[in-house]
Amino acid sequence: MKDMIDLDLPTYEDMLAARERIAPYVHRTPVLTSRILDEMSGAELHFKCENFQKAGAFKVRGACNAVFGLSDEQARKGVATHSSGNHALSLSYAAGRRGIPCHVVMPRTAPQAKKDAVRGYGGIITECEPSTSSREEVFTGVHERTGADFVHPYNDPRVIAGQGTCSAELIEQVDDLDAVIAPIGGGGMISGCCLTLSRAAPEVAIYAAEPKEADDAARSFRAGHIIADDAPVTVADGLKVPLKERTWAFVSNHVTDILTATEEEIVDAMRLTWRTMKIVMEPSCAVPLAVILKNPDVFRGRRVGVIVTGGNVDLDKLPWMQG
Amino acid sequence: MKDMIDLDLPTYEDMLAARERIAPYVHRTPVLTSRILDEMSGAELHFKCENFQKAGAFKVRGACNAVFGLSDEQARKGVATHSSGNHALSLSYAAGRRGIPCHVVMPRTAPQAKKDAVRGYGGIITECEPSTSSREEVFTGVHERTGADFVHPYNDPRVIAGQGTCSAELIEQVDDLDAVIAPIGGGGMISGCCLTLSRAAPEVAIYAAEPKEADDAARSFRAGHIIADDAPVTVADGLKVPLKERTWAFVSNHVTDILTATEEEIVDAMRLTWRTMKIVMEPSCAVPLAVILKNPDVFRGRRVGVIVTGGNVDLDKLPWMQG
Repeated sequence: MKDMIDLDLPTYEDMLAARERIAPYVHRTPVLTSRILDEMSGAELHFKCENFQKAGAFKVRGACNAVFGLSDEQARKGVATHSSGNHALSLSYAAGRRGIPCHVVMPRTAPQAKKDAVRGYGGIITECEPSTSSREEVFTGVHERTGADFVHPYNDPRVIAGQGTCSAELIEQVDDLDAVIAPIGGGGMISGCCLTLSRAAPEVAIYAAEPKEADDAARSFRAGHIIADDAPVTVADGLKVPLKERTWAFVSNHVTDILTATEEEIVDAMRLTWRTMKIVMEPSCAVPLAVILKNPDVFRGRRVGVIVTGGNVDLDKLPWMQG
Repeated sequence: MKDMIDLDLPTYEDMLAARERIAPYVHRTPVLTSRILDEMSGAELHFKCENFQKAGAFKVRGACNAVFGLSDEQARKGVATHSSGNHALSLSYAAGRRGIPCHVVMPRTAPQAKKDAVRGYGGIITECEPSTSSREEVFTGVHERTGADFVHPYNDPRVIAGQGTCSAELIEQVDDLDAVIAPIGGGGMISGCCLTLSRAAPEVAIYAAEPKEADDAARSFRAGHIIADDAPVTVADGLKVPLKERTWAFVSNHVTDILTATEEEIVDAMRLTWRTMKIVMEPSCAVPLAVILKNPDVFRGRRVGVIVTGGNVDLDKLPWMQG
């Protein structure tokens, strides 16, 4: 317990404060159901559609909580991050709503579409070489020059508290859930679920779903300590990052199990969701459904909340087109 | 007026009866909005999402109204049609819910995916050669053998009354609309809008959106009589069929204007909707947005209901992949 206090972990009250703080800037996203997917899974699935969220992903919750929690003095210096994915978009959106700068360090080799999207939300890009050492060096430079507040994509108590608002909405929208399942990469969303549900609905089992090709969280869970892989390759490109100490604290204490799916199972589940539910979602979001269909013994007959984490897909590179 | 009585046109009361009749079998679909698309268009757009409808399209409204309005005696003989698109799916779904046969005549050359989809909803397929004469001959045979009730995809008063329930919901979901816009092919959805809105909200302007490459309705509208083209080619494959006398009666009396968009404008609007709204919809559904973006003088500053007609897309053949 001492360890966890040292980690400055967010509390349930931090989540409640986040909810109030971010309410003007984020959507209360809808929950969709599908008769076909219920029949296929034998479960009763309730899809929390964060693909319809502002900036296209749940990450805007944590980003807004960080940005709108800054003092006016700190806010003037802006925020900074080195993500090139949904966190960069979300932080740019949040900063834009507050009218402060958002500095994003991205490899110069990142796809033009991603750079355009960040700029579209008002983010200021500083390019680095595509290596960890260059990224760190350039980021340190930006940080020192601007004094911007660093908002980590997931290992930040403000971000975890923000992500926790998603499951707080879900349990208001759907009564008597037996389980919640979400994809796991760095563990921000899952940690948010743990933070909220362990207090507000401790009877709800929390499952994390991970690509088999990037199963560092599942192996960490079994080993009892963080295992970080170097650059795993998976179609679920939002899920390549490793757990960090704050997310590990939540995952190791509250998650029921971490289940994995193969690349083929993920792509099949993604395609199935597009075809039956008519929603655009990222490959990462399909991992939970893939895991549910693969493990009927775990989910059959249960009432399950499924977090659909985001919808920022490259429509020119759909995974079933590459086969 | 005598002409219209001879045509056995549906009345507003028929629409109200349809609404009650089909309520147990169809969704009250949600209305979505998009800040980005509002900014791009200068209008306030409210998307009525029939892509989330049962069987994936609005056509299930008319099909259910026809099927559940049959006497028990007629129902036992089933229903029949010769569509190979959403009407065939929808009629199969409706018949399945009532537990009666649905006979669908389809060209043997129709894509396997379409045949599988019809069979998936319980439809009984009889194949014909890919020609009008073969289709008519085979259909007559099926009709005589089974005694099934023929449900035309759009030129049927029961079908038009059923489609009218969509705009009845829309004006309950969104107050004070200035206009409604929907794609036009045979004119079933537009006729339903005319039927409902001319009585319940006569101040709402009704616009039809049509591919320029299949603009027979626009030319009919200007000429004052039905012009039917033979096999136009457009990416909006749900909109190739011509108006018929019943839909023409509604279109010619109540539509404000019919506006067209090019193939490129349609594909751009489709892609834009997928990217910004994160919904899967058919090329046909993109024609209204294409028309709105192309005619800012018509739509700017107005509160517009946009009917998103269906979501049954071949995910292996997305139009921007063929460029």
